[in-house]
Amino acid sequence: FRNGLYVETEDQDFSFKLGGHIQADGGFASSADTISRSNVGFRRARIEVDGKAFKNWYYKVQYDFTGSGVAGIRDFYVAYRDKFLPPELTSLPITVQIGNFREPFSLESTESSKYFTFIERSLPSVLSPSRHIGAAVAIGDKNWAVKTGIFSTSPQDTQTSPPTGESQYWDAAVRAIYAPITEEDKLLHVGASFKYHKPNNTTAATDAANLRPGQSSEREETDVLGGGGALTRVSAAQDLSCAASAATLNIATTGVGQLIAPFARRSSCLKYSYNYGFEAVGAYGPFSLQGEYIAAQYERDSTNAFLYGNGGGSSLRYSGYYVLGSVFLTGESRAASYKGYDKDFNTPGSFGDVQIKNPLNKGGFGAFEFAARYSEINLNNGGLVDGNFVYAATVAGNAVQKAIASTATLGGRQDNFSLALNWYPVRGVRFQANWTKTLTLVAPSDRPYLNGDRPSLFLARAQIFW
Amino acid sequence: FRNGLYVETEDQDFSFKLGGHIQADGGFASSADTISRSNVGFRRARIEVDGKAFKNWYYKVQYDFTGSGVAGIRDFYVAYRDKFLPPELTSLPITVQIGNFREPFSLESTESSKYFTFIERSLPSVLSPSRHIGAAVAIGDKNWAVKTGIFSTSPQDTQTSPPTGESQYWDAAVRAIYAPITEEDKLLHVGASFKYHKPNNTTAATDAANLRPGQSSEREETDVLGGGGALTRVSAAQDLSCAASAATLNIATTGVGQLIAPFARRSSCLKYSYNYGFEAVGAYGPFSLQGEYIAAQYERDSTNAFLYGNGGGSSLRYSGYYVLGSVFLTGESRAASYKGYDKDFNTPGSFGDVQIKNPLNKGGFGAFEFAARYSEINLNNGGLVDGNFVYAATVAGNAVQKAIASTATLGGRQDNFSLALNWYPVRGVRFQANWTKTLTLVAPSDRPYLNGDRPSLFLARAQIFW
Amino acid sequence: FRNGLYVETEDQDFSFKLGGHIQADGGFASSADTISRSNVGFRRARIEVDGKAFKNWYYKVQYDFTGSGVAGIRDFYVAYRDKFLPPELTSLPITVQIGNFREPFSLESTESSKYFTFIERSLPSVLSPSRHIGAAVAIGDKNWAVKTGIFSTSPQDTQTSPPTGESQYWDAAVRAIYAPITEEDKLLHVGASFKYHKPNNTTAATDAANLRPGQSSEREETDVLGGGGALTRVSAAQDLSCAASAATLNIATTGVGQLIAPFARRSSCLKYSYNYGFEAVGAYGPFSLQGEYIAAQYERDSTNAFLYGNGGGSSLRYSGYYVLGSVFLTGESRAASYKGYDKDFNTPGSFGDVQIKNPLNKGGFGAFEFAARYSEINLNNGGLVDGNFVYAATVAGNAVQKAIASTATLGGRQDNFSLALNWYPVRGVRFQANWTKTLTLVAPSDRPYLNGDRPSLFLARAQIFW
Repeated sequence: FRNGLYVETEDQDFSFKLGGHIQADGGFASSADTISRSNVGFRRARIEVDGKAFKNWYYKVQYDFTGSGVAGIRDFYVAYRDKFLPPELTSLPITVQIGNFREPFSLESTESSKYFTFIERSLPSVLSPSRHIGAAVAIGDKNWAVKTGIFSTSPQDTQTSPPTGESQYWDAAVRAIYAPITEEDKLLHVGASFKYHKPNNTTAATDAANLRPGQSSEREETDVLGGGGALTRVSAAQDLSCAASAATLNIATTGVGQLIAPFARRSSCLKYSYNYGFEAVGAYGPFSLQGEYIAAQYERDSTNAFLYGNGGGSSLRYSGYYVLGSVFLTGESRAASYKGYDKDFNTPGSFGDVQIKNPLNKGGFGAFEFAARYSEINLNNGGLVDGNFVYAATVAGNAVQKAIASTATLGGRQDNFSLALNWYPVRGVRFQANWTKTLTLVAPSDRPYLNGDRPSLFLARAQIFW
Repeated sequence: FRNGLYVETEDQDFSFKLGGHIQADGGFASSADTISRSNVGFRRARIEVDGKAFKNWYYKVQYDFTGSGVAGIRDFYVAYRDKFLPPELTSLPITVQIGNFREPFSLESTESSKYFTFIERSLPSVLSPSRHIGAAVAIGDKNWAVKTGIFSTSPQDTQTSPPTGESQYWDAAVRAIYAPITEEDKLLHVGASFKYHKPNNTTAATDAANLRPGQSSEREETDVLGGGGALTRVSAAQDLSCAASAATLNIATTGVGQLIAPFARRSSCLKYSYNYGFEAVGAYGPFSLQGEYIAAQYERDSTNAFLYGNGGGSSLRYSGYYVLGSVFLTGESRAASYKGYDKDFNTPGSFGDVQIKNPLNKGGFGAFEFAARYSEINLNNGGLVDGNFVYAATVAGNAVQKAIASTATLGGRQDNFSLALNWYPVRGVRFQANWTKTLTLVAPSDRPYLNGDRPSLFLARAQIFW
Repeated sequence: FRNGLYVETEDQDFSFKLGGHIQADGGFASSADTISRSNVGFRRARIEVDGKAFKNWYYKVQYDFTGSGVAGIRDFYVAYRDKFLPPELTSLPITVQIGNFREPFSLESTESSKYFTFIERSLPSVLSPSRHIGAAVAIGDKNWAVKTGIFSTSPQDTQTSPPTGESQYWDAAVRAIYAPITEEDKLLHVGASFKYHKPNNTTAATDAANLRPGQSSEREETDVLGGGGALTRVSAAQDLSCAASAATLNIATTGVGQLIAPFARRSSCLKYSYNYGFEAVGAYGPFSLQGEYIAAQYERDSTNAFLYGNGGGSSLRYSGYYVLGSVFLTGESRAASYKGYDKDFNTPGSFGDVQIKNPLNKGGFGAFEFAARYSEINLNNGGLVDGNFVYAATVAGNAVQKAIASTATLGGRQDNFSLALNWYPVRGVRFQANWTKTLTLVAPSDRPYLNGDRPSLFLARAQIFW
């Protein structure tokens, strides 16, 4: 019994855990052009079954009730962990994992939402992949790990099938981490990630996270309260796949046309894309500092992009970063909750539960944490074209104005500053409060009226997990 | 092990229960203008996890698979129960609760559907709030309790976000109960409830339960079989929020208009509303008698209501009541299943499971219960305007006819009489049969063809819970 | 503890099991006119609670997260098993079952998807009913069983309510099986099934599985990857219920028309239908052979069918069959996993888990199985009318051409050949690979461009269950 339901056979070859976590959020926004001004709701409502069988087999099944049907599927995998290689080569266990799980990319993206310091991820997280269906291999030890795999669609994609007659996209991702210091109250961790993405013939409708970053269902810090889109995104007019029209040309749907030309297809614009990122964390007693940089590069067929009037030209680059500092007023250390590959083969090198020194049920007051974060994302790319000009040209411009507007993608740029105060009364319960101020906001070209809007937001969360 | 899965640590500081219940219904209607004439289906299909941690912390997670995604969320809360106040003031434990749970209002609405005497709630239940996200405080003892809290949106609302740029509604509710007699086979219970509702800028689309009672997803006794709307409701033409048009004016959605006037909003009609109710139950051996009265009062901005042609004027009042009598042919008493605050802090003063005297597995025949209920709801309000006139005026009237029609809301009036026969073979299984006859039916003004229709309905249910 | 979570009281009167299974599929198609060319996804993601209470009561609750809301409900039933009849008549226990479960019809349809030899069911399975809400009675022993019941709608129907004001359909089904040989490595099993279907006033929109076979959500072997409809189906123009127009005439929805003629209805074409099937399985050591034949007969009102121009005339017949052979390269026998009525009252006479002789965790390599299957379905019916002619006549024909086209339903005909290779490393984990080649494809009349297309498909699956 471990604060939930946990059973194990005596020889530890089998185990079974039924867990879950619930996050109830509420908040206000000082300005709300694309979201609600105030709201409450459940951010996550997950139940999970976690097991070990025949000593070497692991499985996890996690479902989020805020998603509907397949879209609620989170971690669903089976893994086999054993010493595959001959002992003279290495005696470390290797894990082979298959199913739906987080692509190994970035620290913040692989971290469990149960243990977040801030209520939402930072702005650059829109450039990181989420959970996808695939297969991965991992190797490592207490203080280092490499995990790599190939992946395809995700149950959280807006559409899980490519257009009729077309092929699904795929990804290859790798993350390597090294933690030279992993003591109880001292930690130094560095890491790097890389992801290659091949869109095949998918469109932004079936692969929004990659082909229209910022447009996906993943939320970041200013998209509080779930009322709609984020403040910053690649604008609707600049879908990188050129697929808005491709979809309509795929198959002649009715009539005699079907007999003549059922297979007319339109080429897509994006050849491939790749993302990369760097991460570092240091903790010294109650203090810790953490930062990440993530960039995404898109290589496109410039002829197609020009032909279809799809902005951005042949090569695009988006990027973002964040820096966060945290201090436990009650003396806990984030170093104590660091999980190496030995503790967690699924997301090695991430943070687990806070080790509360004086929990409420033992006469203490629980743990208190104070944190600050600065985060930026830049989804602008290309020529020195003004967003208002692009907007006006797209709405009512002539051909020349449209061609000029098309040389760039203007998804916007945003800088946020956030403060957090967290209370952890006992294991399994936490209360969090965040205040976020948008310092810079360059609007995406399809919503120029956001320019100059610098909202501040207040968010609070009550969470249980068991 | 308690007829399901239940585990507890030895010191009783931790416990964990995995439960659920399933209701399979089937039925016929003699007349079916807005529903199906016959159907079968699952009315509820719930799984729940119920726990206690660190002695004072309670949580409950309940999901209904008949809802999709967030809409299936039922009880999702965490509660902390302790003796907060100095002992000279009171030695009673106080419960603080946060999450999604039933607003403390009315006996019938707080009762668990597992233990219903009739298959569906009575007609006035459309004036009671359902589960909402909020925070509450409760205090009480074996024979009295007060519970109060503030609440906002519900996962079961048709839309869980207010219109873009607007604020969410909120409620404050309180219920006080007193049970001077609570013996094994004798019970006397009285109670009163009050709820204040502030709509902010929500519309009937996002807050149907309050702004268009009878229109929400909650079903009552004549809305058998889930085929559509109930027979009685506030008609579509008389949405109390004036929001049908407000929504379209909220934000100019495309084009250059966005640059000029993105924030044009329209005022709403409803300033605030409040509901109140009274309840009483008496049980003497196998006999019991129960009744409730519930009323809803809406205070509106009469200028806006006039301007937007929204019926009902400045102040509206709806009300309803029911009386039910029950007898256990096999000698059980409803008094034995009464739960005070000491047994149930979430819904104190409600009824739990029937204590079967001779269950089937011990050679008996289980428990048999016979019950009758009379229930009425009146959603008509305002001048002596005939529903058929309102309907004709709305469809094809001139300005004067429309203005006259607009002085009233005619949501209809209905009186039902129901009989029930229930069999409880063993704990965890029950079979129920209901026959309902509509005695009076004054149709809502948008469906005048229902006038004079007095359907009778037959419903049967098989239920398991564990 | 049985490879999952299983608890039982000492007297075995109560038990409780929490189980589940997940299937992650991926595949390619050589041609893909109605599906995707490649994709991955979760085929099933189920969690189940299985219990026994008070010795005689059984219940099962199974939910599939690939369905949304009610549509995810699978086995949801309660059953009571006891020796009802006087001992001089029979001493065999009889099971009464109520809820949602598989209609007793056909071997392949009642088999659990956990234990499939091939990744998808064979082509004729579109003529078998799936799970439905109803009540059934079963009696039998180790080597024989009869199960019969009446059923109505299914949570997996596209719409679970009939049109407003109409009645729900119902089914009566029976399956009888006899297994003269049921040894550890030898098996002989034969069976027959019959189903009567009364559509009442349902339409193909609310009852697609019966009124438009091949069109339902059930997938068969060529509908890999979930991208759309199967290659073979009754075409959209030939819905057997004549209901496409009936639905629009049901009720005048708005305006003064409601006062005059709210109840205009249109008669339907189908009077009733019945399906029947035969099955046989033999196993000798590692070898086994299995086959089934299924046919569906539709009796229609020929006047209505003619009046509404609905093809097929007064009487239609569809049919299909499959034959499969399997061999365990590692010596296991399918006979060992045969479940009679004594082991499984819900689906007696079906196959359970493979009894692996040398599992991976005991130093072996698990079990390997190789299988081949030939399967055919014929959804063509009526006169010698060419599909291309029907298509052209429907799209642009004159009255005479349309009348001729209407004498037949041309849903297509298809023959498939499949090969399977399965690996079962340990209990609870299996990996499957299938290759399927369409040998014959006569296209349905609404998609003539499929004629001459003979795609081959490759499918792989990773599955866990616990």
